[in-house]
Amino acid sequence: MGILKCGYLGPPGTYSEQAGISYFTVDEKLVSYNSIYNIFEGIQSGEIDRGLVPIENSLEGAVNVSMDLLYSNSFVTILAELIFPINNCLLVEKGVGLADITKVYSHPQPIGQSNKFINSKLSAASISYTASTAEAAEIVKGSSDSAVIGSERISDIYGLEVIAKKIQDNDNNFTRFFVIANKLDIGGLVYKKDRDYKTSLICAPRINKSGALYNILGDFAEEGVNLTRIESRPTKRQLGEYLFYIDFEGHRQEKNIKKALDGVQEKSSFFRVLGSYLIEKI
Amino acid sequence: MGILKCGYLGPPGTYSEQAGISYFTVDEKLVSYNSIYNIFEGIQSGEIDRGLVPIENSLEGAVNVSMDLLYSNSFVTILAELIFPINNCLLVEKGVGLADITKVYSHPQPIGQSNKFINSKLSAASISYTASTAEAAEIVKGSSDSAVIGSERISDIYGLEVIAKKIQDNDNNFTRFFVIANKLDIGGLVYKKDRDYKTSLICAPRINKSGALYNILGDFAEEGVNLTRIESRPTKRQLGEYLFYIDFEGHRQEKNIKKALDGVQEKSSFFRVLGSYLIEKI
Repeated sequence: MGILKCGYLGPPGTYSEQAGISYFTVDEKLVSYNSIYNIFEGIQSGEIDRGLVPIENSLEGAVNVSMDLLYSNSFVTILAELIFPINNCLLVEKGVGLADITKVYSHPQPIGQSNKFINSKLSAASISYTASTAEAAEIVKGSSDSAVIGSERISDIYGLEVIAKKIQDNDNNFTRFFVIANKLDIGGLVYKKDRDYKTSLICAPRINKSGALYNILGDFAEEGVNLTRIESRPTKRQLGEYLFYIDFEGHRQEKNIKKALDGVQEKSSFFRVLGSYLIEKI
Repeated sequence: MGILKCGYLGPPGTYSEQAGISYFTVDEKLVSYNSIYNIFEGIQSGEIDRGLVPIENSLEGAVNVSMDLLYSNSFVTILAELIFPINNCLLVEKGVGLADITKVYSHPQPIGQSNKFINSKLSAASISYTASTAEAAEIVKGSSDSAVIGSERISDIYGLEVIAKKIQDNDNNFTRFFVIANKLDIGGLVYKKDRDYKTSLICAPRINKSGALYNILGDFAEEGVNLTRIESRPTKRQLGEYLFYIDFEGHRQEKNIKKALDGVQEKSSFFRVLGSYLIEKI
């Protein structure tokens, strides 16, 4: 199928791009999108073959936009999950030192994650928020008294120098991504017994009352299926009505999992398996 | 105890303020805070007696900041829950008509919620995002060609005119608030058998493995306790490790609920009841 085109949440220099570079091979082309919504649209229209979308972060929790789009775009399936470490760096124009910095620019998230470093090493600097780390890099480029907090990748793109690495408060900062594709494109994916798989599904209990989720989880417990994540999202129809996102170990073609899924489907008014996929660590 | 001081997420004109006005009596004083974090701080220091914090919205889901602060501030207890309808209005300077509007200002959320109205009635207008609806109102005040999307309350504060009501796409837009207080202040709250209560807790299963949440939910199912919400949040220590927030009907002093809670506590490495509280509808 020629060169694969892979969409990510841009602009270049984001952690999403860095994760994409680590995961995809050089024969694949990374395409920058300005929203997660547009990545899903690109997959539907065939503009791209794969999408890399952030799903959850170890500090911030679920990425709700991605969760909601997985529900509303039924043509999508998950091919892989990617665990990517988020390492914030401090970058400056070449020759600028820590003592020269009077202004720090970045997206609110990296700044919020680097409080301790800012308070101890940059306590006199003013903080300005930008829409992306790339926008901050544009501002800092050529400046003799400002710095940007962002990914190491920004150094390659903007020719800025990394003067501090891993400046985040909490070292357990990982983002989990899904590699998604259009179901129409990947009909022929083969299940290999010797590989580690996970499976994700969305369901809504048929009766939204006491014990509904308990009964659903019972189907997994009975079959000894190891659940790795349960998230709820509003159905957007009524306060107090939820969809459940459940991730577990194993492939939907395994016998015990098939059995558990049959039980869950029977108890659900909405039920969709998002895919059985490979686990990739970077 | 004299006049109660009640903190809310400001500035004046927000939906939080409107909810506060509906709930608290005229003898209580509303105090504007610029972050939910600062409301919790105000309660700890005794600067305010009550805090009104948004917990979840029927369209957007959980308010993660509030969830995380309930976990990290153990001095706080929940006194009441409040369900407040979010109704977006279009407001202009007096005398300005729909046809005059070429610019629309608001926080990204009300704009995102009012897509259909904007596309059908204001398709030629440019959209500008502001940090709050109050900031947008400041800009629109005195202008002959711009409008702000926000709460009806903005009309009282800025003397602007409401020219359209309920312009949101989805009419099921409700925000659930908690009224919180310092445990030290409300030692003497009495449980009344004839009132409707809900209880909220946070727990982390002792063993983070297959069936852990299932076993916890089993304690509630056995005692016939009706769960109304389950949310997970990351522990921030390791990707894949979660805290569970569970809400259910009833008061912790009821016999069956006591029994269920004992069972849950036994299976948890972290366990805290946030409070048994009254349900208030506006």
